[in-house]
Amino acid sequence: MPLDDSRLDHLDTPAVVVDLDIARRNIERFQAYADAHGLKVRPHIKTHKLPAIAELQLEAGAIGITCQKVSEAEAMVEGSAAIRDVLITYNILGAEKLDHLADLARRVRLAVVADSAAVVDGLSTRFAGEPEPLRVFVECNTGANRCGVPTPDVAADLAGHIASAPGLTFAGLMTYPPGRGEARVQAFMTEAKALIEAKGLVVETITSGGSPTMMTAAEAPVTTEYRPGTYVYNDRSLVTYGTCGFEDCALTVVATVVSVPAENRAIIDAGSKALTSDLLGLTGYGHVLGRDDLSIDQLSEEHGRIVSEGPIGLSVGDRVRIVPNHACVVTNLVDAVHVVGGGRNRPEAWPVVARGRIV
Amino acid sequence: MPLDDSRLDHLDTPAVVVDLDIARRNIERFQAYADAHGLKVRPHIKTHKLPAIAELQLEAGAIGITCQKVSEAEAMVEGSAAIRDVLITYNILGAEKLDHLADLARRVRLAVVADSAAVVDGLSTRFAGEPEPLRVFVECNTGANRCGVPTPDVAADLAGHIASAPGLTFAGLMTYPPGRGEARVQAFMTEAKALIEAKGLVVETITSGGSPTMMTAAEAPVTTEYRPGTYVYNDRSLVTYGTCGFEDCALTVVATVVSVPAENRAIIDAGSKALTSDLLGLTGYGHVLGRDDLSIDQLSEEHGRIVSEGPIGLSVGDRVRIVPNHACVVTNLVDAVHVVGGGRNRPEAWPVVARGRIV
Repeated sequence: MPLDDSRLDHLDTPAVVVDLDIARRNIERFQAYADAHGLKVRPHIKTHKLPAIAELQLEAGAIGITCQKVSEAEAMVEGSAAIRDVLITYNILGAEKLDHLADLARRVRLAVVADSAAVVDGLSTRFAGEPEPLRVFVECNTGANRCGVPTPDVAADLAGHIASAPGLTFAGLMTYPPGRGEARVQAFMTEAKALIEAKGLVVETITSGGSPTMMTAAEAPVTTEYRPGTYVYNDRSLVTYGTCGFEDCALTVVATVVSVPAENRAIIDAGSKALTSDLLGLTGYGHVLGRDDLSIDQLSEEHGRIVSEGPIGLSVGDRVRIVPNHACVVTNLVDAVHVVGGGRNRPEAWPVVARGRIV
Repeated sequence: MPLDDSRLDHLDTPAVVVDLDIARRNIERFQAYADAHGLKVRPHIKTHKLPAIAELQLEAGAIGITCQKVSEAEAMVEGSAAIRDVLITYNILGAEKLDHLADLARRVRLAVVADSAAVVDGLSTRFAGEPEPLRVFVECNTGANRCGVPTPDVAADLAGHIASAPGLTFAGLMTYPPGRGEARVQAFMTEAKALIEAKGLVVETITSGGSPTMMTAAEAPVTTEYRPGTYVYNDRSLVTYGTCGFEDCALTVVATVVSVPAENRAIIDAGSKALTSDLLGLTGYGHVLGRDDLSIDQLSEEHGRIVSEGPIGLSVGDRVRIVPNHACVVTNLVDAVHVVGGGRNRPEAWPVVARGRIV
């Protein structure tokens, strides 16, 4: 969309704008890659938290969705009858979350992950009396050093534990890969798969994810499914990583210049409550579209500070459009995003139904 | 409150907990300092966004509240009949915000700030036909290099412009001071006050703010009013700054250990959506109460990574309590905080009524 898009003039700022045409193009781009390489796509909805965008992903060919929280999954399923298959890539613990999980399992095809016997045992205790067993993946640490079992041996042990636990079935292997980690994913998963198959178990699905590495996902051919999240909107971190260009960024923050107190400094009404403080390794808090010479060097909650080497060329009342460092966290801050594209003449406010959830 | 507070056991995590007894003590501590030094207190509600806590501040002696957004002020005024005096320390621009501002001005004693003729002229155009003039402060840059006129001369010029603008009256001088900036506040404000008084105008109020420097506010005796925000809850940044101890931190995040995938690594269910990525110059994303040996070195949206030098001493299912780096931004992330103290036997969920506001 053009920088001086008149459709945005009446929006009060700071406003989070989503261009559906760009989002659709991003969805189709990765779906085409995945189709060409025989990968199934299961997008992570954390980025948009919008049932209608999940529907676009499913229409393009996705086989289901990924969520990080039970309550986000509930909001998505309630918001769209098209969402029938959900993977929650998180260790679910605690009575309240397990109860919600059991309710959800009666409504859709559901799977979760586990990386310890403690988590498996909690799931088993809750699901032992349920009509259908819960599908459980083993989360594997292939180098991101977040969650995940450390070795293929431990993965195989835990797969066996899941398979023998009442109320559960073993569904496969899951990882959140490190950057440029295809070789490690391939090595870990190949070995784990062989060990698990040697126990007589089937490894139906090997699921990996992460937008930075999505266009090289096929370099770990053991992978059968991929879970990109940010790709639907893209952001400054992915542009910097080389995954896309700014013209591929579907989510932008429209802000108003409220002060130009010095020749090389301007203050906008988008601070950490609009852009978030996520740096993701970058310098500065976002990219001002059309103005490569500016940087956002400091945020307070309601102030974003833009600085320039030379005269800043901004006046009080001007509007700027910013590509944030990290789109997903921006989505979670606002009760609604303003949707353009798809033939709309003016922005349409879409409630971010899955934001702010705890369970 | 004790670390192993059984009142918190049934809370689903991540949960933001506010201890009213600690908050009350924090409020009284600064009010006593201000009273002893003849300073009026006008707390900034950005930290709590809760009318009931503003009432505690007013009961302790505050003369009114400070807000950063018109819509946050609206939410506070709607939530408490005790809130009758509001200062919005922000340049208000644009038709929608100005309309809300005019409505609010009919309900409470209201003031705003401006640091440019453009902002003053926008306010004047909107308020020229209103029954009462709007009170406008000149925002001054005393070294924080955010908003604010750069010199006392410019402050005096803008004060004159406000005084002559239809629909407005000049209310005084406002600053958000830099760290340890009392001498600069004193010098700037003394000179600006003299220049403005030489024009025949009265400088009724000189208002400064910021919790880091609050206990030295009286070292700029030209100041008549102070606007601390974070002081009501405190946080890791203020502990590090030396303003308080961890026992003075009223806001904590309760999280559950969901994975202990290595001897010196644990993952909790509080990530950047619960703790935020604000570093405020610190290393790590929060302090685990009672465990000085741990650090939170990495956040994803739903994962917080805790690392240790030696064995981590945490198990899956354990709960930890974290003092975040920056309490104010945590408040804005959640729809409700869980209040303990004040004689309550169990936590009470209070909706954060002023969160997520745009106007």
